[in-house]
Amino acid sequence: MGILSGLTSPADLESLDHQQLEDLAEEIRRFLVEKVSATGGHLGPNLGVVELTIALHRVFQSPEDPIIFDTSHQSYVHKMLTGRLEQFDTLRQKDGLSGYTSRSESEHDWTESSHASAALSYADGLAKAFELTGRGEHNVVAVVGDGALTGGMCWEALNNIASGKDRNVVIVVNDNGRSYSPTIGGLAANLADLRMQRSYDEIMEHGKNTLKSMGWVGERTFGALQAVKEGVKSQFLPTEMFPELGMKYIGPVKGHDLQALNQAMTYAHDYQGPIIVHVVTEKGHGFAPAVNDVADQMHATGIMDPITGVPVSQSGPSWTGVFSEEISAAAARRDDIVAITAAMAGPTGLAAYAKDYPDRFFDVGIAEQHAVTSAAGLALGGLHPVVAVYSTFLNRAFDQLLLDVGLLELPVTFVLDRAGVTGSDGASHNGVWDLALTSIVPGIRVAAPRDGAQMRELFNEALEVNDGPTVLRYPKGSLPVEHEALLRTQDGVDLLRYSEDAVDNDQERIDVLFIAVGPFAGIALEVAEELEAEGVNVTVVDPRWIAPVAQSIVALADDHDLVITLEDGIIRGGVGSLISEALSAAEVDTPLRHLAFPDVFPLHASRNELLAEVGLDVEGVSTSVNGWLETLFNDSSQ
Amino acid sequence: MGILSGLTSPADLESLDHQQLEDLAEEIRRFLVEKVSATGGHLGPNLGVVELTIALHRVFQSPEDPIIFDTSHQSYVHKMLTGRLEQFDTLRQKDGLSGYTSRSESEHDWTESSHASAALSYADGLAKAFELTGRGEHNVVAVVGDGALTGGMCWEALNNIASGKDRNVVIVVNDNGRSYSPTIGGLAANLADLRMQRSYDEIMEHGKNTLKSMGWVGERTFGALQAVKEGVKSQFLPTEMFPELGMKYIGPVKGHDLQALNQAMTYAHDYQGPIIVHVVTEKGHGFAPAVNDVADQMHATGIMDPITGVPVSQSGPSWTGVFSEEISAAAARRDDIVAITAAMAGPTGLAAYAKDYPDRFFDVGIAEQHAVTSAAGLALGGLHPVVAVYSTFLNRAFDQLLLDVGLLELPVTFVLDRAGVTGSDGASHNGVWDLALTSIVPGIRVAAPRDGAQMRELFNEALEVNDGPTVLRYPKGSLPVEHEALLRTQDGVDLLRYSEDAVDNDQERIDVLFIAVGPFAGIALEVAEELEAEGVNVTVVDPRWIAPVAQSIVALADDHDLVITLEDGIIRGGVGSLISEALSAAEVDTPLRHLAFPDVFPLHASRNELLAEVGLDVEGVSTSVNGWLETLFNDSSQ
Repeated sequence: MGILSGLTSPADLESLDHQQLEDLAEEIRRFLVEKVSATGGHLGPNLGVVELTIALHRVFQSPEDPIIFDTSHQSYVHKMLTGRLEQFDTLRQKDGLSGYTSRSESEHDWTESSHASAALSYADGLAKAFELTGRGEHNVVAVVGDGALTGGMCWEALNNIASGKDRNVVIVVNDNGRSYSPTIGGLAANLADLRMQRSYDEIMEHGKNTLKSMGWVGERTFGALQAVKEGVKSQFLPTEMFPELGMKYIGPVKGHDLQALNQAMTYAHDYQGPIIVHVVTEKGHGFAPAVNDVADQMHATGIMDPITGVPVSQSGPSWTGVFSEEISAAAARRDDIVAITAAMAGPTGLAAYAKDYPDRFFDVGIAEQHAVTSAAGLALGGLHPVVAVYSTFLNRAFDQLLLDVGLLELPVTFVLDRAGVTGSDGASHNGVWDLALTSIVPGIRVAAPRDGAQMRELFNEALEVNDGPTVLRYPKGSLPVEHEALLRTQDGVDLLRYSEDAVDNDQERIDVLFIAVGPFAGIALEVAEELEAEGVNVTVVDPRWIAPVAQSIVALADDHDLVITLEDGIIRGGVGSLISEALSAAEVDTPLRHLAFPDVFPLHASRNELLAEVGLDVEGVSTSVNGWLETLFNDSSQ
Repeated sequence: MGILSGLTSPADLESLDHQQLEDLAEEIRRFLVEKVSATGGHLGPNLGVVELTIALHRVFQSPEDPIIFDTSHQSYVHKMLTGRLEQFDTLRQKDGLSGYTSRSESEHDWTESSHASAALSYADGLAKAFELTGRGEHNVVAVVGDGALTGGMCWEALNNIASGKDRNVVIVVNDNGRSYSPTIGGLAANLADLRMQRSYDEIMEHGKNTLKSMGWVGERTFGALQAVKEGVKSQFLPTEMFPELGMKYIGPVKGHDLQALNQAMTYAHDYQGPIIVHVVTEKGHGFAPAVNDVADQMHATGIMDPITGVPVSQSGPSWTGVFSEEISAAAARRDDIVAITAAMAGPTGLAAYAKDYPDRFFDVGIAEQHAVTSAAGLALGGLHPVVAVYSTFLNRAFDQLLLDVGLLELPVTFVLDRAGVTGSDGASHNGVWDLALTSIVPGIRVAAPRDGAQMRELFNEALEVNDGPTVLRYPKGSLPVEHEALLRTQDGVDLLRYSEDAVDNDQERIDVLFIAVGPFAGIALEVAEELEAEGVNVTVVDPRWIAPVAQSIVALADDHDLVITLEDGIIRGGVGSLISEALSAAEVDTPLRHLAFPDVFPLHASRNELLAEVGLDVEGVSTSVNGWLETLFNDSSQ
């Protein structure tokens, strides 16, 4: 660790000679494998950008030249080179180093969101601001993956960056041929071709010599020469990728060749105006278990053996696994089932289905908007599409869900994995907004299964809905213990615990109704035990479908003295407020209290740590409920 | 009206000869000008696609070959040719013909949303469904404007359509050089060049002859010939526009030449696989007042003189006008103010500002995602961006608002015009979702001015906020009467009417608190008069900032017997539920009732008609409130 540990700032890179830089790359790679094996994290992407990040920091003057990492899960090397080497033992842990860029960590980090395809837009804005405030000589660098280029935001940004001829935006395309899984679509085919080509300079040199040897000289042949040049260019360079937007392009640059990278970045640094540098890298480079991982080249790994890459522990059956089984079972029964994902076949559990039903599987790239509206098209064509994405990424397609699916009342089922508090991935990976967001859509039906058995039931109920969108949302990780219902109301609400007294209007005991969303049923049942021991009647229901609100919930609320909602999303606009709207409409004025995630961005920590911190564990819920009971009933009885 | 009125279905077009088709185009144009002058509507866009629509319906077999109109405000001619000629007198009126395609009107209408750039995604989905269900021989036609191509969804769709080599998707690019205002960015520059070029065939013929005359023949010269060909192609054809996605392109086709259009569409119809037909049209073609309207070629017009195009009536000062004045005033005071719009400088009131401060004005195209995240970049660079869009179009950029602006706590001010119920533009133009949507963002501040004076105040308050996003939302149309506040609480709530009795806890009278959002203050005050006459104390407050909820509102609610929220958005997740969450958190259990737009998609009608229909006028509100008072207080006193 001689060189790496001796670096105090990016400026130190300048004095290193070529061999030292090579050694540094080697050290960084060893460090990455060692540290990420111990904590888990995005290993493959960071192994792929070791040389690229060194070159960027050697040539550009961060933070005056901002370097914006798109998604930023590939910013570990950047963190090492900007003074955060010591903190890697705490990677992605509570109060530890974030797995993404984070403004509170360093002035070298300009952004935080991990959603793809946004970096070019940030860069466009920053460059405009620099121009207006007399800092126009600085470069704004955006590092974006080829996968992210399938996202529409990049196109919108490129179209705008191209028209700012005087602004120094450097777009580094980190082309490893993958999103999470291999990049899809016409763009990917084009990039794949390009990677096989000789460099532009080689070709042009060859072309010039050929023409010279034919004796073509002077004005007369200028037209033809230009035409040849254009022809060669259009054949060997991806100007087509950046559609005659008038943007300078250099590449492809070998992404693990420090000298080539240095040269390209120096050119880009000195170039006046927007420029694209196309860098070809290998995800997982230098670590055999990653390179050989055909599924995703160790995109994100848990704790594992640093030599073999074998995971240290296996977790139990997961929510994702249940979906995986059920979609295949449904597809076997019904020809009209089609599945769509946005570059996430593996993580969403669609890999097996995709293998068995390739004709009915569509990976649209990192393109959630298109995922949703092409699903609308499939539904218009008579099929029942299932769109499987992470909860947080549906944010990108709210308008499409509302107007392209909802307005047309199309039967599209949205399966939202990683709903609620997700934990170590930090703020922008959390799925705490989906209940508030999806329930805005008129006519939508939203379900939150409490366990694996309910997940199977609700998914299949969703597939039977023919007159509008359905949503199924469930958390990350392993399945919880199952809780059987005592009975199910006609409108589909499960009673998990039931106080006869409540309906009898026994005036001597207080009657509490818990409305527990999804896997929070377990917590509600535990707290109910405690309360019952204190002399309180407790009913616990799982609404199963949280939107629309079932009439039986309203009726139950009317029969109780206090209603408590418990959910795994933000308070604002969540199930608590859905219930409140329903009670208000029915003129039921039973006091109502909400237990949910507060209206703040969750930090990174484990899911359980985050939940406990905001009082969403048994202890926290119990404390809250007892406090409310005290105020409501003891005070007033004085 | 000989030919037009004789048509019963698109199939009738087949028997018409060339002259009859020309006459038909003429008739349609006269009909359009006459009818739209009387009702208002999208005149310019429809005048531009008369011949194009005739050619589409002549060549393709709608509805088996679906024709999807992007935005669909250019579907009037399509409506005339599919049996809806008689209904044009009711265009955009209650129970009349929709200004957009509408599935309830005709089997020829496949979609309804008016948001741009979605048509290609629908088409991709439909073509996939056709392939899977044995209808693969049918064409799916998408008609999309050059402006809409600046939207990222189109890029996502093109990338996917290109990889479906066997699917018959026909993409008709209706290139009139305009979005609302002229199309922006590198794409637009490229398209503009193309329109000036000779046709591809002309060029290639010329090239071949030139080479022949030079004696270039045989294998030896094959390479050079190919290179020339490529060069010519890349120079004269916008393959670059559709980046080597492997998609067939034909054009540019003269968009008012029926024979050229017929030929191009026939070629596209017979072509196997996805194809792009680039049609150059003129917005407003054939109607001088439209062609000569430099601002927007009569994109959308009110009632006007059918000869001169002069508007029949002028409306009073508008919300948009106030914003227009205030942004210019703010820009004069502060160098750090920049404004961003998404192809809507005119309609959002930014035209004057753009003229005075061209360096600080950015029209990003129909690209709301980029609008928001490039604003984040501008804010990171130390400026205070103002993003001015229609309320409904912010739906497209929720993720960017949440994570690119909200998470970074950046000072970006969103100015949402056409908030609430808009009226005649139909479901997808309504701004009834913004309160629910924007208030989900942690730390956001959302304001709804009740009149012009408040609009000025609140806009300037928003510009003073430095630690997170602010939203200002206001309806379409003219300014309402102003209501002065009796007093303003320290946390910014305006008391418009105040019952001393309420605070005195006079037990003899019922105390009602009205929380009236934005311009609904007027209705609340009128109803308050009535109630007071009935012996009820009424307090009316305008929260001004609806998020976060002011503590003074919670305190007032505690002092009253009934709280009523009144707002111009959907119930689900709106201000009513915001207040309910705040009261619940404070353990205030005063009965709460919500008056808001129901959770359905609004149909087209005038704003006042729509509001009256759902009880959001003085009469409706009065009836609701009296009903609640009856149930709550008369029943319980029995």
